[in-house]
Amino acid sequence: MLKSPPAPQAVAREARDMRERRDVDRLDSRLVPPVSPVPPLARGYCAIIVFSEPVMSEWNVPDLIDHTVLRPDATKVDVLRLCREAKEHRFTVIFVPPCYVDEAVAAVAGTAIRVGIPIGFPLGGHTTKTKVAEALEAVARGAHVLDMVMNVSRLKSGDREYVRKDIAEVVNATAGVEHKVILETCYLTQQEKRTACQLVVEAGADYVKTSTGFGAAGATVEDVRLMKETVAGRAKVKASGGIRDWKTTLAMLEAGADRIGTSASLAIVAEWARRLKAEG
Amino acid sequence: MLKSPPAPQAVAREARDMRERRDVDRLDSRLVPPVSPVPPLARGYCAIIVFSEPVMSEWNVPDLIDHTVLRPDATKVDVLRLCREAKEHRFTVIFVPPCYVDEAVAAVAGTAIRVGIPIGFPLGGHTTKTKVAEALEAVARGAHVLDMVMNVSRLKSGDREYVRKDIAEVVNATAGVEHKVILETCYLTQQEKRTACQLVVEAGADYVKTSTGFGAAGATVEDVRLMKETVAGRAKVKASGGIRDWKTTLAMLEAGADRIGTSASLAIVAEWARRLKAEG
Repeated sequence: MLKSPPAPQAVAREARDMRERRDVDRLDSRLVPPVSPVPPLARGYCAIIVFSEPVMSEWNVPDLIDHTVLRPDATKVDVLRLCREAKEHRFTVIFVPPCYVDEAVAAVAGTAIRVGIPIGFPLGGHTTKTKVAEALEAVARGAHVLDMVMNVSRLKSGDREYVRKDIAEVVNATAGVEHKVILETCYLTQQEKRTACQLVVEAGADYVKTSTGFGAAGATVEDVRLMKETVAGRAKVKASGGIRDWKTTLAMLEAGADRIGTSASLAIVAEWARRLKAEG
Repeated sequence: MLKSPPAPQAVAREARDMRERRDVDRLDSRLVPPVSPVPPLARGYCAIIVFSEPVMSEWNVPDLIDHTVLRPDATKVDVLRLCREAKEHRFTVIFVPPCYVDEAVAAVAGTAIRVGIPIGFPLGGHTTKTKVAEALEAVARGAHVLDMVMNVSRLKSGDREYVRKDIAEVVNATAGVEHKVILETCYLTQQEKRTACQLVVEAGADYVKTSTGFGAAGATVEDVRLMKETVAGRAKVKASGGIRDWKTTLAMLEAGADRIGTSASLAIVAEWARRLKAEG
């Protein structure tokens, strides 16, 4: 007698866990002819659920997105619109340029929305002293989340201690807020990505983050997997840069991303909500 | 009897002056059939000199170039190579990321080369306080030139006073060094470019500068002309962003640029020197 198929949510979760473990062989085995002990009905059912119809209700997407406007030509009107959108669509974090911290904090006052400010953004080559000054000012003005750019150049120059200290000084100077460190993975080798993750963990930041959105390329599923594996639970992972639609967002979440940074938040949430509704 | 043709240098200078005045009709008249009183021989001579063979000896090119490395993935080795190249090829200003100010100052000690540091680079949306702190630190460590990015967003939001004050505070806090203000022209309307030039002049900076090299586009001949015309001698003009060869460099100089920012300095100077030699 055939066993009843597993619940859709459990299947999706299991598939994600396998991907995180890079357990590709086991995942692929679900799609090949019956060489495994899994009954044919369950196997077919699983394949459809995992690869064609992800379970929308598994994610509370507005809660996972840092709703962001960091274009240099975005105006004050754009920033204030972002704040309104965050309230309307229940995003929990917004990111605005440092010079708009006052306006953003005032606009979301009385809500649970936290204001995020980028530090040493987007090149990361500012001095540590400047990064610390920028972080202190942001927090003093009401920011609760800081996404700082790692000193990419110093990492590529082999100066690990500089990189670790650069991060640690910002983290220690502004204890109590959330710290993410942007690796700008497009410029790093695989080994440099692993080293960077290690240094972020040692420096005590909360997240490793893939990209600024201003580099040569943005987040990739492979980088998210690598970072998730390397931090091994000692930090979370934020994917950002080039994430413009729900399909990409889902791929990042399935690869292990804990948060998504994007300026295309409304389109992503609309598509997620549409599919959630269709799912019933 | 025909008058003897004017000296080549005078012709080139006159052509440049006409271009600066946007005196396109008069310039074009040199290329059309004889409707002007200029004798045919002189007219033909002028056309060849101005449009095909610019006078190389008119420019001391290494003296006009800010030799620059600001890529986020450039290493310490790249920065130190830049310093050596500056000494070897007699560039007078180098630009390096803020975190390398100590190394650059040490590397060019005992020469006339000045170290330049970008401020609020490349987005310009840092707070004024952060820009001032970054500028003060750079100068305290030995920088003599500061290229700060204007707050593009505040200009586009119509907040002229913010933009003027943002520049003036950096200029006043670090009096005695050279200040350039990057407009990032690719994001501005023609009117915004004029307004920005006016604010830079009012704030007391020495130069208006076209681009960071990290925006959607770099310097254009038209922008250099517009900026030169707007500042009207009250500031100088630096062209930068996307200037990779001698032909483009020459076009910028002819349009009125007083300085050129580029990381392709060696190729540009080599081509200039080759033509200078050919000119005898």
